Amino acid sequence: MALQRVFISDLSGRVGQTVLIRGWIFRLRVLARTTFLIIKDCTGQIQCVAAPEALRDMRPKLDDAVEVQGVVCEDERAKGGVEIQVTTAAILNRAAQTLPFNSSSDIRSVGNEILLEYRPLALRNDGVGAVFRIQAAILRHFREWLTARHFTEIVSSKIVSGGTEGGTNLFEIRYFDRAAYLAQSPQFYKEHGVAGFERVFETGHVYRAEPHATSRHLTEYYSLDLEMGFIDGPEDVIELERELLTYIFERLNSDHWPILRRYRQDKLPALSGAPIWTFDECVARLGRADLINDLDPEAERQLCRIAEEECGVAAAFVLGFPLASRPFYTHPLTEARAAGFDLLFDGLEITTGGQRLHRREDLERALMSRGIDPASFESHLKMFELGMPPHGGLAIGLERLTAQILRLSNIREAALYPRDRYRVTP
Amino acid sequence: MALQRVFISDLSGRVGQTVLIRGWIFRLRVLARTTFLIIKDCTGQIQCVAAPEALRDMRPKLDDAVEVQGVVCEDERAKGGVEIQVTTAAILNRAAQTLPFNSSSDIRSVGNEILLEYRPLALRNDGVGAVFRIQAAILRHFREWLTARHFTEIVSSKIVSGGTEGGTNLFEIRYFDRAAYLAQSPQFYKEHGVAGFERVFETGHVYRAEPHATSRHLTEYYSLDLEMGFIDGPEDVIELERELLTYIFERLNSDHWPILRRYRQDKLPALSGAPIWTFDECVARLGRADLINDLDPEAERQLCRIAEEECGVAAAFVLGFPLASRPFYTHPLTEARAAGFDLLFDGLEITTGGQRLHRREDLERALMSRGIDPASFESHLKMFELGMPPHGGLAIGLERLTAQILRLSNIREAALYPRDRYRVTP
Repeated sequence: MALQRVFISDLSGRVGQTVLIRGWIFRLRVLARTTFLIIKDCTGQIQCVAAPEALRDMRPKLDDAVEVQGVVCEDERAKGGVEIQVTTAAILNRAAQTLPFNSSSDIRSVGNEILLEYRPLALRNDGVGAVFRIQAAILRHFREWLTARHFTEIVSSKIVSGGTEGGTNLFEIRYFDRAAYLAQSPQFYKEHGVAGFERVFETGHVYRAEPHATSRHLTEYYSLDLEMGFIDGPEDVIELERELLTYIFERLNSDHWPILRRYRQDKLPALSGAPIWTFDECVARLGRADLINDLDPEAERQLCRIAEEECGVAAAFVLGFPLASRPFYTHPLTEARAAGFDLLFDGLEITTGGQRLHRREDLERALMSRGIDPASFESHLKMFELGMPPHGGLAIGLERLTAQILRLSNIREAALYPRDRYRVTP
Repeated sequence: MALQRVFISDLSGRVGQTVLIRGWIFRLRVLARTTFLIIKDCTGQIQCVAAPEALRDMRPKLDDAVEVQGVVCEDERAKGGVEIQVTTAAILNRAAQTLPFNSSSDIRSVGNEILLEYRPLALRNDGVGAVFRIQAAILRHFREWLTARHFTEIVSSKIVSGGTEGGTNLFEIRYFDRAAYLAQSPQFYKEHGVAGFERVFETGHVYRAEPHATSRHLTEYYSLDLEMGFIDGPEDVIELERELLTYIFERLNSDHWPILRRYRQDKLPALSGAPIWTFDECVARLGRADLINDLDPEAERQLCRIAEEECGVAAAFVLGFPLASRPFYTHPLTEARAAGFDLLFDGLEITTGGQRLHRREDLERALMSRGIDPASFESHLKMFELGMPPHGGLAIGLERLTAQILRLSNIREAALYPRDRYRVTP
């Protein structure tokens, strides 16, 4: 009977057995009498030791996909305590003769464009692979923490008939014989979700047709959205986010420190210590009379530095932006200030959130004050007649959060296939 | 100090305490000297008992969002063993005076269009809410089972420069000064993921600009995708799906049987017992010489009936469709038959999967045999020079799976906001 393939992580319990493993040649050292192959699969790496005749005609090279049969032997010097004495080996699929880099290369000198052009090979590299393993872990911990706190996951449509913020920056789709648009946020749908389930979250793409070409913007990004009902004010949402991110960061610190430490010297901080500052207080602290409606990148960086000095964590919640600068559905905090907040982390805004208006008449007034006819939002406004509770929520940009955690300088490094003003491939 | 809101599921440990709860009025019975309110929040329901003066001026009605203060009392007749003796109550937001149905209505007589038009209220109803709670559970169990088996979650772009299957049925996007398209599948990206991580999955939307208006088609649906490397053949993918769905079904049976039994009399079957039949064998069993390239809905229903009789489970894997009827990247099983399969479950195809070609030269040949110039797929073909292992995978339609599990007659009932030929709202 043919041998079943075994994962590399399961080899240590099989000393003395003949096994079949499959994976890529991650490292290769050819000596006169012995060839050493490090084989890598999705569970780990193992050293394989072969006499020349075991590899006859095989001509192995880095990044070939191979299978190896051999005997598992104890070896104290090896990771996991075992290595494989190769009996036979075969190529499953060859890598090209020349590659711009290998999966075991030091890719710090390889440009981002090349890494993107050869995405699979980059993912196989521990450096780039780590970024997306961390991203997958963030997603997992985000969902599991919220699920344990009575949030229900929803899946809402990304094809919509209009925008949530008045119809700007939308990508238009040819939808049979009419026009439709790509959703710029699941905002309305998650509010509907609140009126149904009280607490909902969604992880999914959102789209912004903004002609930015900065290191912080993508036209398609992945949004971690949550919305919760029966709140007293925006502080309830802030407190939830503090606990949520503190949990995610603790899990990353404990489960992924070997990855994190390649990117940052310090462990991720407990965001439970991040202060809440009002927008006006921020402007005063910075002495920046020119900041009228919003913060700018320099202000975000400075505020995080101040937070680090004063509170020991380079993060701050900024609450109470000018009401006119926030979307129409924002609940007021005072007459001119919004019950909306941003979370700045390590110098960059990674979250926008706040309390929303929950009464139809307030939403109508807010629309009219912005010169928008409430009739154009009728199908949404109608949902506020169904017992919509006071509510609020937030959205975290997954790529930005990943980039800040790993201190990447460009958000594109945190997107498997980034989309911007100029790029729709690969 | 003001009372903190308490979740209803936490009340049983607070007998004798004064508490504040928030939620919706789910049921209401007004007697001369006492009013009974059943309040519902995201964690459960509780009976609240009020003297008329406690509700003075409140005029409560069904589906109002309210808060109630009162004392938790033991009551053997009540669910959870406790009820609340109301001290004060207040309206947080009123529902409309007249609604087409209430969250406590028997909604079997309410049409799907009305349920969709009043989505939040429908979600608050146990019947519709159950559909999306089950859907959230499917997503959770899909991800957690795969994560435990060394699959890494990826997030791939839905904005693409072309199709995976030759460019038909794509929705076109106006992307700044050029055209782009909505992805009809993450197929290429998950194959790239295999070459990087060996095992990947993705849960996300896919788009098909097909002018269908059947009970089984949506233009935007949610696809549960996985792809795995180093396989021996399509049977490896089939075996993985058997185990995966058997796990998901077991979890639904054990954790959600009170929901399931409203929709189906029997527990969900173990799909480990689903047979594998070749396409040719299916045609012969059905005596249907007219089935040349694919099965039709009647054939899918009949095959599931036969499987139920012979194997005790109304599901079957159909392997070996005519090669010409499957996408160009399909690996052959024999010269004219594809190493691709469908999973039929309870009369409907819910999965398409199979082994893919993994050698560049085979892909080029397959493209040319279909009259497609390989140069138009160059950026994808190049990925096959990076040590791409033999691989395969599958895609499960989330709405179809949900509909089959709950025996819903129309896939739209399993989409929070369905999109079809005629609908882009709400």
